[in-house]
Amino acid sequence: MKNQQLVLTERPDGIPGPQHFSSVTTDIDLTPPQGHIAVKNLYLSIDPAMRGWVSLEENYLPPVAIGEVMRSITVARITNSNHPDFSEGDFVYGMFGWQEYCVADASFMVRKLDPELAPVSSALGALGPNGLTAYFALYKNGQIKAGDTVVISTAAGGVGSIAGQIAKLTGCTTIGLTGSDEKVALCSEEFSYDHAINYKTCGDIEAAIKELAPNGVNVFFDSTSGAIADAVYPCMAMHGRAIQVGTAAIDSWIPTPVGPRRDRYILTKRLNVSGFVLLDHMGDFPEALTQLASWYKQGNLNYRESVIDGLENAPLALTHLYEGINLGKQLIRLAD
Amino acid sequence: MKNQQLVLTERPDGIPGPQHFSSVTTDIDLTPPQGHIAVKNLYLSIDPAMRGWVSLEENYLPPVAIGEVMRSITVARITNSNHPDFSEGDFVYGMFGWQEYCVADASFMVRKLDPELAPVSSALGALGPNGLTAYFALYKNGQIKAGDTVVISTAAGGVGSIAGQIAKLTGCTTIGLTGSDEKVALCSEEFSYDHAINYKTCGDIEAAIKELAPNGVNVFFDSTSGAIADAVYPCMAMHGRAIQVGTAAIDSWIPTPVGPRRDRYILTKRLNVSGFVLLDHMGDFPEALTQLASWYKQGNLNYRESVIDGLENAPLALTHLYEGINLGKQLIRLAD
Repeated sequence: MKNQQLVLTERPDGIPGPQHFSSVTTDIDLTPPQGHIAVKNLYLSIDPAMRGWVSLEENYLPPVAIGEVMRSITVARITNSNHPDFSEGDFVYGMFGWQEYCVADASFMVRKLDPELAPVSSALGALGPNGLTAYFALYKNGQIKAGDTVVISTAAGGVGSIAGQIAKLTGCTTIGLTGSDEKVALCSEEFSYDHAINYKTCGDIEAAIKELAPNGVNVFFDSTSGAIADAVYPCMAMHGRAIQVGTAAIDSWIPTPVGPRRDRYILTKRLNVSGFVLLDHMGDFPEALTQLASWYKQGNLNYRESVIDGLENAPLALTHLYEGINLGKQLIRLAD
Repeated sequence: MKNQQLVLTERPDGIPGPQHFSSVTTDIDLTPPQGHIAVKNLYLSIDPAMRGWVSLEENYLPPVAIGEVMRSITVARITNSNHPDFSEGDFVYGMFGWQEYCVADASFMVRKLDPELAPVSSALGALGPNGLTAYFALYKNGQIKAGDTVVISTAAGGVGSIAGQIAKLTGCTTIGLTGSDEKVALCSEEFSYDHAINYKTCGDIEAAIKELAPNGVNVFFDSTSGAIADAVYPCMAMHGRAIQVGTAAIDSWIPTPVGPRRDRYILTKRLNVSGFVLLDHMGDFPEALTQLASWYKQGNLNYRESVIDGLENAPLALTHLYEGINLGKQLIRLAD
């Protein structure tokens, strides 16, 4: 069988794009060894974390090697199974990469999906990593509770939009920071934010937040770092929690960029700042997925997908992700 | 009765010193109203936090007003009591300010001292705020446990020297950062550090720490911020804890100084960074003081005091504190 793949050919110095990947066609034997499954990818996920994965900078996973298929979570359908828990035709979620087919160890990160529960593509977003990230970061690191004021950066994005809704469902006041008027409208209309700020046009971001949160920000769910985060720290309430979920606003960490020191806010307001990586919470996924699915079935969890057809469009979609063009979770569709 | 006082006359733009205070002599009536005590100060405490207290910058206490007696914790002896729990002749700890005498509400922060337990001056340092700060910051924020590698900035200072010993008594490997060879020797010989680094002469501080902590730093007890802290963050271990206890290396926070962004370390290493202010832990003081006294009586808690005689020397002693000249807890003695 021919297998089209996108491999990393050059390490980006900044935002990754088409110039860093090449399409290659290889032969693949879809007969899985013991404990393995062969799958055909249906949807590829385009994620902010990917810039980190292709960088040699310190990260939570080893970098994708030059010449290696681009790492990606995907939703796929099993073509052949050699594992007792999986059958041909099953929909699965896994780390199957930017390629058409994959033979993979069924015991590593593979999860069976129920197409009756929700569209299977949602396993890459709202009912998958995005929803899980929002859920654990808010509840574990953020310790959110009813009455808290929660600020969310990239508020209309795949993770932020779910975080906003979870915080609202928990009884928090939610303030979203996003980069266009279209996204501001989406925040209010689809993602139930109490307030949304267009940080590009609002003028003084810090003043805008302080006006909406006169008693301070209890929890800051931050996927951006950079200037947006710099504006939120002075707004934090006593004993506030800031969660570093991503650093999308920083193009490169080599050399380390400089910014306003936060130590005085951390000290005098007794802030708690913590880093969040979803891989640390795998043992708790089932409980969280049940809760997320329950909210979804009750109609309380909206999500947007931005779907582009064709494997070859994945690198450009990744560039657009960092440019903030997409609305909702960015997916590449290879088949239905 | 005449009462000599040091009042704040000018708000410092940077390090406070003699030019910011004036000596005034006022009349004081030592007859305390109901619930109050009159005291004669024996020892004044000179503390890193004082720069924050005289600044208009955001802090955890309101700023000392121009014309007001300088805020200071002190050890004093009661001359007259109008409170059933206190008697003439009792040694007490309290917030009695830079002055000879004070009439104060006995219910606010006043604590009776046992002169048999330890020299009463220790209530201003090792068996007082310094020891308590080290104790709670390490155990509550830092969650230290045997086997952890703990880095302590201002390692030979009033707080740092106790923190180093508490961490060692808990079974941690301790690395002290300090600013002279004399202090390095003190760290090893009196404060039981496993390692001590002279950050002024060691060259690359980050490399020096990494050599001593090949598996990373689990807990960073930071009283400095600034360049020293910048060198420690890249050395942190996965899930490490950094505790902001002070920011002694930063002369002013207006305008906010810039430094390397730490968000990527916080994210990828899942660090937990938290601010510590002792006032938050007052309810737990008795338990901690009992533990500190027990270590002291067993000969396991060494401390140094640097004692200067005369109220008029307090402002210069404060300047010297920020210049790192003193060894151990800086005190002003007014009487014995």
